[in-house]
Amino acid sequence: MTARFAHTGAMTLKLYELVGTDTAAPFSPFCWRIRMALAHKGLVAETIPWCFTDKAAIAPHGSEKVPVLLDGERAVVDSWTIANYLEDTYPDRPSLFGGEGGRAMARMLNWWGDGVIGGMFPLIIADIPLNLKPEDAAYFRKTREARFGRKLEEIMATRDSAVEGFRKSLDPLRLTLKTQAFLGGATPNYADYIVFGAFQWARVVSPFKLLSKEDPVYAWRERLLDAFDGMARKSRSYHG
Amino acid sequence: MTARFAHTGAMTLKLYELVGTDTAAPFSPFCWRIRMALAHKGLVAETIPWCFTDKAAIAPHGSEKVPVLLDGERAVVDSWTIANYLEDTYPDRPSLFGGEGGRAMARMLNWWGDGVIGGMFPLIIADIPLNLKPEDAAYFRKTREARFGRKLEEIMATRDSAVEGFRKSLDPLRLTLKTQAFLGGATPNYADYIVFGAFQWARVVSPFKLLSKEDPVYAWRERLLDAFDGMARKSRSYHG
Repeated sequence: MTARFAHTGAMTLKLYELVGTDTAAPFSPFCWRIRMALAHKGLVAETIPWCFTDKAAIAPHGSEKVPVLLDGERAVVDSWTIANYLEDTYPDRPSLFGGEGGRAMARMLNWWGDGVIGGMFPLIIADIPLNLKPEDAAYFRKTREARFGRKLEEIMATRDSAVEGFRKSLDPLRLTLKTQAFLGGATPNYADYIVFGAFQWARVVSPFKLLSKEDPVYAWRERLLDAFDGMARKSRSYHG
Repeated sequence: MTARFAHTGAMTLKLYELVGTDTAAPFSPFCWRIRMALAHKGLVAETIPWCFTDKAAIAPHGSEKVPVLLDGERAVVDSWTIANYLEDTYPDRPSLFGGEGGRAMARMLNWWGDGVIGGMFPLIIADIPLNLKPEDAAYFRKTREARFGRKLEEIMATRDSAVEGFRKSLDPLRLTLKTQAFLGGATPNYADYIVFGAFQWARVVSPFKLLSKEDPVYAWRERLLDAFDGMARKSRSYHG
């Protein structure tokens, strides 16, 4: 399955993306950062669906995880490294960082965004294996239950109350949106895609309502769902 | 008392800065953001010591809080606004943001840094009035105890255990420092001063050890204490 993200571009780009039972519904938060970054750069990439247990498929590229970007003969691993690669390799296309200061600060926002993913985990984690092939569901359950020391369903049992703490953790984003439309300023950039990737991950795999409709973060997410001709909004989900 | 931050500069600059019993020991985290920003720009500013109850002194400039920057006839209020004013007014001097992407992202880091100040508050709050003149100490205690609904000493009573949670909250900063010396990249910029201002505030008013010496954040703070010929390190504290 080939996804055309945007205009014509470097036709050699291929992106390994995490999927479940629906190869047209990628859901990794890290892959979504890169999907959005590619669209921002106006680059076309062929998507290569990848499942949790397909370790052998990406081992030759030196990785156990996705995203993995192939640019011709070259493999680039890890979302942050890929974003920097795209910025450096395609400097004449719209900037992902808005300058070197932005690139440096985005490194911290990337870590902050990883924390957002961590905060979402207990809210959606047991929904994820429902969307996976049996062998991937077993792998996911085994590795994540080992990491957290509890059953996925136990972790998620308190999500209706835990969501309040998660929402509170978004305050730095929420407060920023009081005076600008995006973390990147008047228009989005990689700082936005970092955090949006987490929301798109949750959106694709779980029906749980992470945000109230009155939240400025909700409106920000809507704007990013609409970006690039509604690319993220059009992406299929595994539920309802 | 006149502080010479750096080389010669716009000789008309004056900065109202919060002090306690020692007019040469400014301690506001927000004023320290601007002290560092002025030094970064190589600007000289005359400091005007200001105490909590000196509301009348800055009322004509349209503010109840410091920092207030005077640039000739013009008054600029609020640290974020002042930083942007300096960047726009002195564009030929070293950039505080490293481009427009950095400026936009720094807005979020500014909110994150305000959260760091909030996290430090329970760790140092009862030390602050010890450094204030009687009328300012009374004002500080009254307003802060009203805000938190508890005695300052009660808020601070658990600081030896609470500090662990505070240190954990610095993870996005700590992780960023794994691959770059400063939030601004190889050299510091306003993103660093935002967070450093909080540490300098704590350092000037309290002997409490916020960081372990093994923490990469400790080493980062050391580098900023050394910046601008050790400006922040040389600043007097109210203890030890």
